[in-house]
Amino acid sequence: MTDRDATATGSKTTVEDARLARAALTWLVEPGNRDLYALVSADGPSRALSRLASGDVPAGALRGAAEARLRTADPWQVATAALAKAERLGARLVIPEDDEWPARLDDLCQIGSSGAENPADRDSLPPLCLWVRGPWPLAEALERSVAVVGARAATSYGLHVATDLGYGLAERGWTVVSGGAYGIDAAAHRGALTAGGITVAVLACGVDRPYPASNTGLFDRIAERGLLISEWPPGAAPFRHRFLIRNRVIAAATKGTVVVEASARSGAKQTVGRALRLRRPAMAVPGPVTSAMSVGCHELLREYPDVRLVTGVPQVLEEVGRIGDDLAPVARGPHRPRDDLDATASALLDAMPRRRTAALEEIAAAAGVDLREVMRKLPMLAHLGFVVERDGGYALTAKGLQ
Amino acid sequence: MTDRDATATGSKTTVEDARLARAALTWLVEPGNRDLYALVSADGPSRALSRLASGDVPAGALRGAAEARLRTADPWQVATAALAKAERLGARLVIPEDDEWPARLDDLCQIGSSGAENPADRDSLPPLCLWVRGPWPLAEALERSVAVVGARAATSYGLHVATDLGYGLAERGWTVVSGGAYGIDAAAHRGALTAGGITVAVLACGVDRPYPASNTGLFDRIAERGLLISEWPPGAAPFRHRFLIRNRVIAAATKGTVVVEASARSGAKQTVGRALRLRRPAMAVPGPVTSAMSVGCHELLREYPDVRLVTGVPQVLEEVGRIGDDLAPVARGPHRPRDDLDATASALLDAMPRRRTAALEEIAAAAGVDLREVMRKLPMLAHLGFVVERDGGYALTAKGLQ
Repeated sequence: MTDRDATATGSKTTVEDARLARAALTWLVEPGNRDLYALVSADGPSRALSRLASGDVPAGALRGAAEARLRTADPWQVATAALAKAERLGARLVIPEDDEWPARLDDLCQIGSSGAENPADRDSLPPLCLWVRGPWPLAEALERSVAVVGARAATSYGLHVATDLGYGLAERGWTVVSGGAYGIDAAAHRGALTAGGITVAVLACGVDRPYPASNTGLFDRIAERGLLISEWPPGAAPFRHRFLIRNRVIAAATKGTVVVEASARSGAKQTVGRALRLRRPAMAVPGPVTSAMSVGCHELLREYPDVRLVTGVPQVLEEVGRIGDDLAPVARGPHRPRDDLDATASALLDAMPRRRTAALEEIAAAAGVDLREVMRKLPMLAHLGFVVERDGGYALTAKGLQ
Repeated sequence: MTDRDATATGSKTTVEDARLARAALTWLVEPGNRDLYALVSADGPSRALSRLASGDVPAGALRGAAEARLRTADPWQVATAALAKAERLGARLVIPEDDEWPARLDDLCQIGSSGAENPADRDSLPPLCLWVRGPWPLAEALERSVAVVGARAATSYGLHVATDLGYGLAERGWTVVSGGAYGIDAAAHRGALTAGGITVAVLACGVDRPYPASNTGLFDRIAERGLLISEWPPGAAPFRHRFLIRNRVIAAATKGTVVVEASARSGAKQTVGRALRLRRPAMAVPGPVTSAMSVGCHELLREYPDVRLVTGVPQVLEEVGRIGDDLAPVARGPHRPRDDLDATASALLDAMPRRRTAALEEIAAAAGVDLREVMRKLPMLAHLGFVVERDGGYALTAKGLQ
């Protein structure tokens, strides 16, 4: 019987057993481990934990990884302490057995398996659980959400665009999702908070341990008015390799991903790659070709036909919104009176002298238009106010001179 | 017998008759007239002119247009005077019967016909002749050429990019082709001239009548070191509707078209549209989404999957160059020593304390990696210089700390 089956028929105790086991497993084995995901899928979290703790799994990387940490502590005790610590922080552990678990995350199963063609996808399995700090039910907060990601070393242009996107999405009732880094991530969160919206920071360390530390004030505001979430238990350190594993959650938690600025080597590009593999809208904001921080966006747009160029919130919503909703207007320049004229009428206006009256024949010759046609068109142009009849000929009006 | 057949068997006199007739026809009927093109294709230029002059064509727009100008002068006299004027200017009339006629222009036949689906294409017929001022054979100058077009009201960013493109293309032996406007056009020409290359300005007025006048110095340099070309005879005025008709020549004369900056309503967008209809590479340079002058480029990139985003000369040449030649390198960030490590080795380095030596078991627990794997990997990492063995454990080196 799998763990999900247990839940369907199960009791509160079964769910809390699962929660404790999943908490222990996030400590025992680094997230993104495909063998652990397979074990939990087959045996449920409680039995998977028991088997790992007693060494009742085939020898290999999974058993070895668990043994390395089993030597230092008892996993049930660690999990109990972590859950207690989370409770003191006002945080909680959300697990797939909970109603607030976002079903969308489980789409990662589609791309992450041991047989996946792309090696990067082998680690693209759903998280076993998420530590969550903040006032919103997780699934509800993520239901209408867009990831806004990008470079730490953002330019003022990128910060401006990310803030605008965060603000505009929040203003229209969309949740912003990003990491917790300086630069684009922080700007997107700040924009959303300014608009009074919900913003979600997906961390690569414990939700009690904001990294970078100078974003502490921002993290506190997000914990109050949005959500801080992480696969790693409270206290976990932001190891570098954890950021790439974390990125799959940002792509999977949202309806689409926008990268605002990215250098040639960028984790944001990888997040967009995950969104593409999940067949979710993947978008990139262009920028000056003279900016190193737009190189990654331009490369994405050049290399992947499915990555869509977006210039603002309406175009983002056109990608992630329901069909018929949220359609972006096509950019149009200002309308000029002459735009409605046909080519011949326009040619006549071009050919007329700017400061004096001209005879019909002169206008016809200058424009190279049949005189009879000129005789038909000019009264129409007079009626529309482009010309006036004068001394048997015609002269341009102020409107015609435009 | 068509005019081309006449040439194949013809004499110098026949070619000069054709030249005089074509000169007269460019004055008698505005360029881009599909009925005139059909008449010349069927009867040859000399007979087409005689028929028009004597009213021996069906009643309609073509006959009426010709009549409007026939009332003012004799077309043979006008043509003789125009050719004499051109000669005084150091200009010449190049016609399809000449060796230097660029065959590529005749591709416009493929998209321009009375049955064309797109109304704009109905005027997309090849020019009947081109007035040329400058030292290069026309076909040779255009053989390896790229159109660089864009907004008059360009930003400093657009001017910078256009100058760079003009310079870089010329430096690699490519001819730059553009209009004669302020902004992107002028910047592209200046870049090419600075690199000592050939640049071609396609005008919507006579080659003796630079427009705008403040570009006179630039036009003089182009006439000396590149080419000024136009469908309109010397003295013709730059009527507004002529610019759009001119744009088809820019698209058809070149191997591909790049638009650098364009507002939402822009002739440059139309030039790119013509390039697409000709199945020539069409390219757009992105810019800040905050700039009105990049709106047209972004719309092209969003609306037409065949318009390629380009960020510089190598990517332009990749589109227009022969396969195997001129391939643009993919943008890559700087290489870091850790990039070559596998995920486990990288996780071990992440998990090591930064200022002290750690025991193997501690590293294994922190990284969540099998102790046996740690015992295998750390000597390798020591060999590569990322860690050193010390006091029975390992410590990070400066390289490992990066």
